[in-house]
Amino acid sequence: MTWEYHAPLPDMRFVMERVLEAPAAWAQCQPFAELDLDTVDAVLQEAAKFAAGVLLPINAQGDAAGCVRDDAGRVRTPPGYREAYRAYVEGGWPALPCDPAWGGQGLPMLVDAAAREMLVACNHGWVMYPDLLHGAYETIKAHASEDVKARYLQDVATGRTLAAMALTEPQAGSDLGLLRTRAEPQPDGSLRIVGQKIFISGGEHDLTDNIVHLVLCRLPDSPPGTKGISLALVPKLLPDGAPNALHCDGIEHKTGIHGSATCAMRYEGATGWLVGEPHRGLAAMFLMMNSARLHVGLQGLGHQEMATQNALRYASERLQGRAAASGAAADPIAWHPAMRHTLLRLQAMTEGQRVIAYRAALAIDRAAHDPDAVVRAAESALAALMTPVVKAFCTHHGFHGASAALQVFGGYGYVREYGIEQTLRDARIAMIYEGTNEIQAIDLLQRKVLADGGVALQRWLREALAEASRCEAAGLAEAAATLRHECAAAEAATQAVARVAAQDREAPLRVADDYLMGLSHTLLAWAFAASLRAACGTPDRRWARSKSERMTYGLQWVVPQAAVHWERVRAAATLALPALRQ
Amino acid sequence: MTWEYHAPLPDMRFVMERVLEAPAAWAQCQPFAELDLDTVDAVLQEAAKFAAGVLLPINAQGDAAGCVRDDAGRVRTPPGYREAYRAYVEGGWPALPCDPAWGGQGLPMLVDAAAREMLVACNHGWVMYPDLLHGAYETIKAHASEDVKARYLQDVATGRTLAAMALTEPQAGSDLGLLRTRAEPQPDGSLRIVGQKIFISGGEHDLTDNIVHLVLCRLPDSPPGTKGISLALVPKLLPDGAPNALHCDGIEHKTGIHGSATCAMRYEGATGWLVGEPHRGLAAMFLMMNSARLHVGLQGLGHQEMATQNALRYASERLQGRAAASGAAADPIAWHPAMRHTLLRLQAMTEGQRVIAYRAALAIDRAAHDPDAVVRAAESALAALMTPVVKAFCTHHGFHGASAALQVFGGYGYVREYGIEQTLRDARIAMIYEGTNEIQAIDLLQRKVLADGGVALQRWLREALAEASRCEAAGLAEAAATLRHECAAAEAATQAVARVAAQDREAPLRVADDYLMGLSHTLLAWAFAASLRAACGTPDRRWARSKSERMTYGLQWVVPQAAVHWERVRAAATLALPALRQ
Repeated sequence: MTWEYHAPLPDMRFVMERVLEAPAAWAQCQPFAELDLDTVDAVLQEAAKFAAGVLLPINAQGDAAGCVRDDAGRVRTPPGYREAYRAYVEGGWPALPCDPAWGGQGLPMLVDAAAREMLVACNHGWVMYPDLLHGAYETIKAHASEDVKARYLQDVATGRTLAAMALTEPQAGSDLGLLRTRAEPQPDGSLRIVGQKIFISGGEHDLTDNIVHLVLCRLPDSPPGTKGISLALVPKLLPDGAPNALHCDGIEHKTGIHGSATCAMRYEGATGWLVGEPHRGLAAMFLMMNSARLHVGLQGLGHQEMATQNALRYASERLQGRAAASGAAADPIAWHPAMRHTLLRLQAMTEGQRVIAYRAALAIDRAAHDPDAVVRAAESALAALMTPVVKAFCTHHGFHGASAALQVFGGYGYVREYGIEQTLRDARIAMIYEGTNEIQAIDLLQRKVLADGGVALQRWLREALAEASRCEAAGLAEAAATLRHECAAAEAATQAVARVAAQDREAPLRVADDYLMGLSHTLLAWAFAASLRAACGTPDRRWARSKSERMTYGLQWVVPQAAVHWERVRAAATLALPALRQ
Repeated sequence: MTWEYHAPLPDMRFVMERVLEAPAAWAQCQPFAELDLDTVDAVLQEAAKFAAGVLLPINAQGDAAGCVRDDAGRVRTPPGYREAYRAYVEGGWPALPCDPAWGGQGLPMLVDAAAREMLVACNHGWVMYPDLLHGAYETIKAHASEDVKARYLQDVATGRTLAAMALTEPQAGSDLGLLRTRAEPQPDGSLRIVGQKIFISGGEHDLTDNIVHLVLCRLPDSPPGTKGISLALVPKLLPDGAPNALHCDGIEHKTGIHGSATCAMRYEGATGWLVGEPHRGLAAMFLMMNSARLHVGLQGLGHQEMATQNALRYASERLQGRAAASGAAADPIAWHPAMRHTLLRLQAMTEGQRVIAYRAALAIDRAAHDPDAVVRAAESALAALMTPVVKAFCTHHGFHGASAALQVFGGYGYVREYGIEQTLRDARIAMIYEGTNEIQAIDLLQRKVLADGGVALQRWLREALAEASRCEAAGLAEAAATLRHECAAAEAATQAVARVAAQDREAPLRVADDYLMGLSHTLLAWAFAASLRAACGTPDRRWARSKSERMTYGLQWVVPQAAVHWERVRAAATLALPALRQ
C-alpha cells in the first residue's frame, strides 16, 4: 500500500458552508465581503495539489536524510526542500491571510487554516519553516517601528525572508521569566544582543538568504521575571548584506520532524531592534504565540486526517479473519468490530476537531473585521478561549490518533516503509512546543475561564445551546439532549472549580488538565451535533448518511468520556494530590 | 541529566512478600518448598546489576547502530550485544525458571518475571533475543519427540542455542489460518520446509552459532484454516553442523528496538522435525504464546518503571516556575500540580500493574506445582484469564506511560540525548506483537470469560472481594468500598454482555476492547487496595506512608476511568456500530 493524501475538500467545504455558515460571517467583514465559496474552493484545491504533489513526495526522504549542519554552522535542509519552498513562495502561499497592502492575498484565517491543515498533513518537517511566518508578520505589523516594518514586513509577508521565534534558553522553557539573553542599547538606537537560545525551529537553514529572528531578551534596567522581557528583531543578514553576529552551534537529533532544523543559537553582540515597548516583549510575542498555537493545533488535525484516511484504506485492502458470512477465506479488517471502532473514532475525532479548529479561525477573522464592536469583542474572547483547546486537544489526538491508526497496520505500522510511523513520531512534538499542553490547560482555566468570571464561556455555551435547539427543530432530539447534557456538565464543573478557587488557589491547577479535556468534549459534542444537523441539509444523501453515522458515533461513543474528567474537576476540593516522594 | 536505572527491588519484594504472600504459596509447591525471600532477593540483586551494569550501557548505542545484514544474509547485532549475551549465559540467566533436569535453575516464574522486568527496562532490543527462549523450552519440553528433546532442549534451556518463533507470513498475521508454508514428510521421518516468513525476531543474528526456528506450517493433507497447522523445529545448523536451507532475506527498519533483528526468512527445503501432533501445531504453539504474552506484558511494565523513575528524577532537578512560597526564583517542576498528577499516575500505574503481572506469574507457578488439583485448575484458569490483561493493559500503558513521562521532559524529551524518546519508540511494538491488543481483548472476553460461563472470573472476583474484607478489617473502609464497587460493576457488565451475546454473536466483539480496559481497572482497584492494606504492615513508616499515598491516588484518580468502559460494554445491545464508508 502506498502512503497517499486525498485532501478532505468536501468536508472542509461542508464545515465552512453548512456547519459554521462562514459566508454569512464573511459578508459582514469588509475585506471578505466579495469572497465566495467557489473562490475558496479553487484556492484550497490548489493548496491540496501543492500538499499532495510537492510536499508529500519529499516527506519520507526528508525524514530519512534529516538536516545536516557543517562546521561553519550552516544548515542544509533535506533534498527537495529548497525547490518546494521556492514553489511555495511563487504560488503566493505565505501571504494567504496577509494584508494586500503588504503584499498579501487578504484571505480569511479560516481559509488559511484549511490550507495549513493540508500542508502539515503531507510534510510536517517542511511546514515548520513557513509556519512561523504569519505570527512574525502579525507581530512586526502590530509592534515594530515604521522603519523596521518598511525594511522587513513585506519580505516576511511574501516569504522572501523566513522567520524564527527565539524564546527558549537552557534554563528557561515553560518559565520564560528565567531568561537571560541581554539587549544592550546602542547610540544609533539599535540593540546589541548577547545570549544563547535553544530549540529554535528554523534558526538557521538554506531556504532563504535572510532569516528574521524574534528574540526575547532583557534590557539592562529590566525588572526580574516576565515583566522585564523585551522583544528584538535580529536579522541573519544586516541591512547592508553583511552577516550579523549570530551563529548556529548545533542542531538537535529528534524523534521526528527530522527535516526541520531545531537550532541552538548563539547571539554574540548581534545587532537588533526593539519590537514593541521595553519590558513588554511578552505581550508583543503573545500575538505571535496565539497565532502559532492555532497553527500547532492544525498540525494535530492534519496528522489525524492523514493517519485516518490511510488506515481506512489499508483496513479496506488487508484481508484477515472472517467478519461476515461472505464465504471468502478472509474479509477486509475494516469489517471487524474492533477496527470499525478504531476507524470510526478516528473519523469522528478528526471531523469534530476540524469544526472546532475552524470555528477558532473564524473567530479570529470576525474579531478582526466584523463592523460591530460587540461582535468583535465577543469573537476575540471566543478565539482566546478556544485557542488552548485547539492547541492541546488537537495535538493530543494528533499523536494518540496516529498511534491508534498505526495499530490498524499491525506489524507493518512499526516499519519505515509505511508512513504511519513517521506521522506518529512527527506528531509527538506538537504536544510540547508553543507551550506544553499542560500550560495550555492552565491558560484555559485560569486566564480564559476564571479570570473573566466565566463570561466568555457562558457566551459560548449559549451558542452551543442555540445549536441544540436547532438540532431539536430538525428532529434530532437525542443529539440535542446530549449537547444540552454536556453544556450543563461543563457549567456545573466550572462553577464548582470557581467556588473552590476562592478558598484554595492551587485547586484550579490541580484540575486544569481534566478541565481542558472536559471542555474539549463539550466542544466535540457541539461539533458533532452541529455537523449532524447540517448534514440533514446536504443534497448528496449517501454522503449525508455516512456523515450522520460518524457524528452519531461520536456523540454516543466518544463524548461520554467527558464524565470522568468532570468528575475529577468537581472533586478538586475534596481529593488530595499528595507531594511526590522519591 | 543521565539516563539511569535503579531497580525497584524494595517494591518487588513488597509485592511478593506482603501483597501476594508468595512464600506461603511456594511452601506448598514441591520445587520451591525450600525457597526463601532472601535467596530471591539475592538473585534479583544480581539481575539488577546485570540490567543496569551490562545492558543499560549498550542500550542507546544499540538504538543508534541497529543491526546490519550483509549480502550473504548474515546479521550483525550492535556493539556489545555478543559480550552481554555471553555474560548472560555464563550467569545462568536463561535457565532461571527451567527444570534442573534440563540444566535449569528451577526458580519460580514469579522470580523470572521480576528479573525480566528489569532486563527489558534497560534494553528492550537486546532482550528480544533471549526473551523467546523460555517459550521455546516449554514447547519443546511438552511436545517434541525424545530425540528432538535430547538434541535441543538442554541447549535451549541454558541459552547455548537461541530460538525464534516463525509464525507470520505476508498474508497471514492476526489470521494464522491463512498461512501457506509447506512441510513435506521425508522418508527418514524429517520434514522438508518450504515457505516465507516475515517479522521473525531473532531469525538470524550473531549471538549464538545455532538458532532453533519453531515454524508454523502445513502438512500436505492438512485441512484449511487454523485446524490444519503443524509445528516444526527447524535448526539453522543441521545436527552434523552443516547449514540448513534457510536464509534471511532482509531485516526491517523499525520505529524502535533497533538492536533486535526482525527478519524476513526464506525456508527453501529446510530440514525440520514435527513438534506435537500433525495439524495440532497451534495448540503446541499456544504454550509458547501464553508464556510470550506474559513476557510482553512485563516489557510494558519495565518501560513504565524506567520512564517513571527518570521522569521523577528530572522533575525533581528541573527548576521552572514557582509552585510554593519557597522564595526561590523557580521551584522543581515536580512540585507543580500538573506534574504531580502525571508522576503520581505513572507511579500508581506502574506499581499496580506490577502486582497484576506478578499475580499472573504466581498463578502459572501454582498451576504447575501446587499439590492440590483443584488449586492447580483454578490457578491455571486464573493465569489464562489474566494473561491477555497483562499483555494488553501493561503494553498500552508501557507506551502511553512513556509518552506521559516524555511530556515531563518538555522539549528535552523529544531529543535523542535523553533516553525517554527511545523508550517511547521501543515500547510501541509491544502493543502489536504476540497478538495485537485487540486480539487479546477478544481472547479475554470470548475465550476466558464467556466460554466457561464466567466461572474463572467469578472465582477471581471472590478473591478480590476477600481482599476488600481484609481492607475493611484493617480500617481501610474507602478502599474496600471502591474495590467492592468495581467488582460489582465488572460483574454487572459481564452479565449484560453475556445476555446480549446469546442473541447477537457480534456483540462481544463490539465491546471487547472496552471490556478489557474495564476489567483491567477492576484488577487495578484490587492491586491498589491490596497494596494499601499490605503497606500498613511494613516496618518502614516513611516508605509505607508514601506507598499508601500513591495507592490512594490510584483508587481516587485512576480507577474511576472504569465507569466509561463499563458503560460502553453495557450499551453493547443498544448502540449501533455502523459499517465504514470510504
